[in-house]
Amino acid sequence: MKVLVMRDVAIIGVYNTKFGEMWDRSFRDIFVEAGVGALEDAGVSGEDIGGLYVGNMSGGQFVEQEHIGALIADYSGLSRNLHLPSTRVEAACASGGLALRQAIFAVASGYQDITVAGGVEKMTDVSTSIASSALAAAADHEWEGMMGATFPGLYAMIARLHMHKYRTTSEQLAEVAVKNHYNGSMNPIAQYQNRITVDAVLKSIMVADPLHIFDCSPITDGASALVVAPADIAHKYTDTPIYIKATAQANDTIALHDRRDITTLDATVIAAKRAYEMSALTPNDIDLVEVHDCFTIAEICAIEDLGFTKKGEGGKITEEGETAIGGRIPVNTSGGLKACGHPVGATGIKQTVEITHQLRGEAGKRQVDGAEIGMTHNVGGSGATAVVHILSRNR
Amino acid sequence: MKVLVMRDVAIIGVYNTKFGEMWDRSFRDIFVEAGVGALEDAGVSGEDIGGLYVGNMSGGQFVEQEHIGALIADYSGLSRNLHLPSTRVEAACASGGLALRQAIFAVASGYQDITVAGGVEKMTDVSTSIASSALAAAADHEWEGMMGATFPGLYAMIARLHMHKYRTTSEQLAEVAVKNHYNGSMNPIAQYQNRITVDAVLKSIMVADPLHIFDCSPITDGASALVVAPADIAHKYTDTPIYIKATAQANDTIALHDRRDITTLDATVIAAKRAYEMSALTPNDIDLVEVHDCFTIAEICAIEDLGFTKKGEGGKITEEGETAIGGRIPVNTSGGLKACGHPVGATGIKQTVEITHQLRGEAGKRQVDGAEIGMTHNVGGSGATAVVHILSRNR
Repeated sequence: MKVLVMRDVAIIGVYNTKFGEMWDRSFRDIFVEAGVGALEDAGVSGEDIGGLYVGNMSGGQFVEQEHIGALIADYSGLSRNLHLPSTRVEAACASGGLALRQAIFAVASGYQDITVAGGVEKMTDVSTSIASSALAAAADHEWEGMMGATFPGLYAMIARLHMHKYRTTSEQLAEVAVKNHYNGSMNPIAQYQNRITVDAVLKSIMVADPLHIFDCSPITDGASALVVAPADIAHKYTDTPIYIKATAQANDTIALHDRRDITTLDATVIAAKRAYEMSALTPNDIDLVEVHDCFTIAEICAIEDLGFTKKGEGGKITEEGETAIGGRIPVNTSGGLKACGHPVGATGIKQTVEITHQLRGEAGKRQVDGAEIGMTHNVGGSGATAVVHILSRNR
Repeated sequence: MKVLVMRDVAIIGVYNTKFGEMWDRSFRDIFVEAGVGALEDAGVSGEDIGGLYVGNMSGGQFVEQEHIGALIADYSGLSRNLHLPSTRVEAACASGGLALRQAIFAVASGYQDITVAGGVEKMTDVSTSIASSALAAAADHEWEGMMGATFPGLYAMIARLHMHKYRTTSEQLAEVAVKNHYNGSMNPIAQYQNRITVDAVLKSIMVADPLHIFDCSPITDGASALVVAPADIAHKYTDTPIYIKATAQANDTIALHDRRDITTLDATVIAAKRAYEMSALTPNDIDLVEVHDCFTIAEICAIEDLGFTKKGEGGKITEEGETAIGGRIPVNTSGGLKACGHPVGATGIKQTVEITHQLRGEAGKRQVDGAEIGMTHNVGGSGATAVVHILSRNR
């Protein structure tokens, strides 16, 4: 029994703050900038919107603040008179992607019309050890975090096995970082806008063998927001609504050691399968994709698991330039988590903002020619949550 | 533009764990018991369900665990093969109510069919000072928590002004606790099943004048879960589906000092108004209500703000027995947060489980004769979030 009653949903406004170390600005400040920016981009005001979803991983541990939905709505001026429903969604680094998904459900159901989905994280107000410990809470605390496992360590194990099984090389991993820094150098919101070389990656300090520091995404402050609306009214607000063709989520075991094969993120495979089925599209139809490159190895696994190449060939196609802008399937034109930075709650929304800019033809020097269909891929932890969205210029 | 495309949604299974200090059981254990219990009550298996929503306020601060949706799905056996989408929702003490709301949206939209909504909190594994500090993160950290405000302190200010404006007495506050302990004495899951007297409340130690310790809900471990389904197929699973007639949410300023009148929770008033409009019902149609009595004064404000009596008369009607089982409008037949305990993420779901038991006629000694329509009222913080659901035996 699957009665398809959902309304089509479209994105009508988007905004990213600058990503980076924003020591002069607070958690609430950066979200408000993003939310207001997205509303202005859509040409709507607070009175027009029906609800707000905020992706945030760990306000409690980073800024001693929970009840993030209420806080954000209040400081956005949406509480005192409008009493706008506002809800926080959390799925570690996939919090942003799931905030978008709940906004789509709210609009598709008919319960809400115009709805804001955003994400925010303020990570640089605490010491690195507190940040590492907070991030480790995305893994299985009892079986991973308490044993001292950190995320670089978990992804290093994935990388090591991938190298063993598929002959993936450190140079191929480095090529991911080189490409993403190159793309980020053309993105004014990116935390790192400097270009780097394979040699620089290989000579950078080792964090968790085989991952050098330039294989890792950084600790970042930032916020992103977007506005969704029923597709039937989207043209009232914008000449270029971007349509949601699929929203798909899959979960997997939270601990890495419980997986059947740690070089494949089954959550990504299944979420992608669900998204392709929902949209009746295939990997060949996708013009560009933002994937969750929290580490360089994660991008290599992602492009394999999403079906853009055969298992084990992610490193090879990266090295051959297929994932560069102008290549067969441009990956992380925004600069990805690696160069943009990774404010964990914001990342899934930032990916969607980038795809929207690309499909609107507004991506400037990063523009993928003729982009019509794009995908986002947002992962929580070491792959216990994966969220895939497919977006299109055409309804 | 409000196209009503939503499908009707019904509750087909419910379960509460025992609430209390469960030092021998972990966060994940108690949720799994609740989830499995709700599935068994509905007569469905993991293969039948399309998604899971978990309300949890502060896994990060209480048990150093975020990514709660993934954790819970995994330990419920729903990840490895089924890859079930599972999402955590957070709105402080209203997390459970909002988890239910997202589950309703997911089903109403047509994206998911049978869906589980649950809530969990494990609060007794940390010291009282850490628990108080974690709970304070539901308030405005920069303007309340950092200044030393705690929730008993904030609600004490509400109580003091209510006493000043409306001549509410300490005895009337105590009557709320006496009634809720009486109801809780008939509820096998309640943390406190002892009956108390007004005199005992007034002689108990003062926490924040005028609130005695017996005016306060306790720190509690517990989990609750329920199963929702499209109303059209609910009779396949149960003879007594309970229908969702309204789901409404309203937010307000997060800091108490920013409100126009701290004795009225505008979020409650507006959420109730939205729920009455959505269901075309009035307070007179409601046979019983579970309200958010985190403190005795909160129940008094709630029954006023939900429209069950005039502003200022909440204490009086409590004293006169109108809110007792058998009275005009029975309030907190479960024992409420006061006697059941208040595992913050679970409370909103537990309220819905109680109303479901009542409308099915399964509430045993607590049964409200002929109950056909019930309401739940779940609050986050000092009223920055309010969620109201109306449930009915009849579609």
